[in-house]
Amino acid sequence: MKIGILGTGQVAQGIAAKLSERGHQIKVGSRTGEHTKGKEWVENLENASLASYEKATRFGEMIFNCVAGVGVLDALKLAGKDNFENKILVDVSNPLDFSKGMPPSLFVGSDDSLAEQIQRALPSAKVVKVLNTLNVELMVNPSSLPGEHNLFMAGDNEDAKKEVCRLLTKDFGWPDKAILDLGDISAARGTEAAVLLWVRLWTKFQNHKFNFHIVVDPKTKR
Amino acid sequence: MKIGILGTGQVAQGIAAKLSERGHQIKVGSRTGEHTKGKEWVENLENASLASYEKATRFGEMIFNCVAGVGVLDALKLAGKDNFENKILVDVSNPLDFSKGMPPSLFVGSDDSLAEQIQRALPSAKVVKVLNTLNVELMVNPSSLPGEHNLFMAGDNEDAKKEVCRLLTKDFGWPDKAILDLGDISAARGTEAAVLLWVRLWTKFQNHKFNFHIVVDPKTKR
Repeated sequence: MKIGILGTGQVAQGIAAKLSERGHQIKVGSRTGEHTKGKEWVENLENASLASYEKATRFGEMIFNCVAGVGVLDALKLAGKDNFENKILVDVSNPLDFSKGMPPSLFVGSDDSLAEQIQRALPSAKVVKVLNTLNVELMVNPSSLPGEHNLFMAGDNEDAKKEVCRLLTKDFGWPDKAILDLGDISAARGTEAAVLLWVRLWTKFQNHKFNFHIVVDPKTKR
Repeated sequence: MKIGILGTGQVAQGIAAKLSERGHQIKVGSRTGEHTKGKEWVENLENASLASYEKATRFGEMIFNCVAGVGVLDALKLAGKDNFENKILVDVSNPLDFSKGMPPSLFVGSDDSLAEQIQRALPSAKVVKVLNTLNVELMVNPSSLPGEHNLFMAGDNEDAKKEVCRLLTKDFGWPDKAILDLGDISAARGTEAAVLLWVRLWTKFQNHKFNFHIVVDPKTKR
């Protein structure tokens, strides 16, 4: 599949590497679209190139949003609203505000979420929130952490969620039952807020190799 | 131990019942301190009685705050700041705002927490935030949910946290290693926010018999 990846940070790098390894064609979008220091990694991937946000978005049949939270809405504007039409936008970002240092707070209130802001900004896109509650190494190599653990998914479009599930199972190696669909895009309020707990756990463990597992009574309908 | 329990809702009832069963002396505090409809449950417990917030607080060597979030600071004022001096206040509450219906939002921003507001209101109390991320039936009967799962703890006073751990293991049946101490009271920002995810999971499962388990790489120092 042709996949556009917005952002050039660690999350974008990990996801791009895995998708390239799995045989997809990748265009990584950055603000300028030019190779600057630290972006040589794109050239080392098969079937991958660096472009502007706009070109990466036009290229992709599916788009991953891996831009740092504060920059997301600007980046999507630069990418061009119309270029997302009818496409799946996998939103991995978090509304983290580091302006007062560590620990971060959220720049979105608990009656909204960054995912909903994105869906409102791009009404013709199919936004699927997922992968925002764990480190990128685990996102693309879930079995590197032994034991059962979960991903949380939210989105308004059922077919889009199913397609993202297929990619997560086939290309990233997630067991199908590990992906918990929490409903419409507003469920991202819960999964984005949970990142505040993730940060405190990270502070404790000084290591990002951990994840949430939801233990459910065996009698509960899944 | 003499324990004061503030609040008369489901959480207060479950905790009072368990602590009474375990041989503690209980005074349950309510706004009026009088028996009104639905409060007969206190009389059915051994060594338990109903009183005002103030009397229950004065009685307790340790206090449990089980008041609904929006009422907490008022209730603590009625209980009398001085009555908490040097006492452990186990804060089980959540800053849930149901004023716009379901799902709730939080009435505290992500750069603060209700637990911190309580600690600031009662500087001579030893506030320990714990038990706020799961249903009361699991709080006091953790083994009723099969498998490993966790509690998150936050508080400024190390000895107070140790004492609360002892009660949780001895009286409620939590394995010691299931209780994750996330640091000072500000870590409650993470555990209170996680309740927004809990609510979405509850919506999915339509059942509150589930809990968070943090899966950690075996090599990580706990």
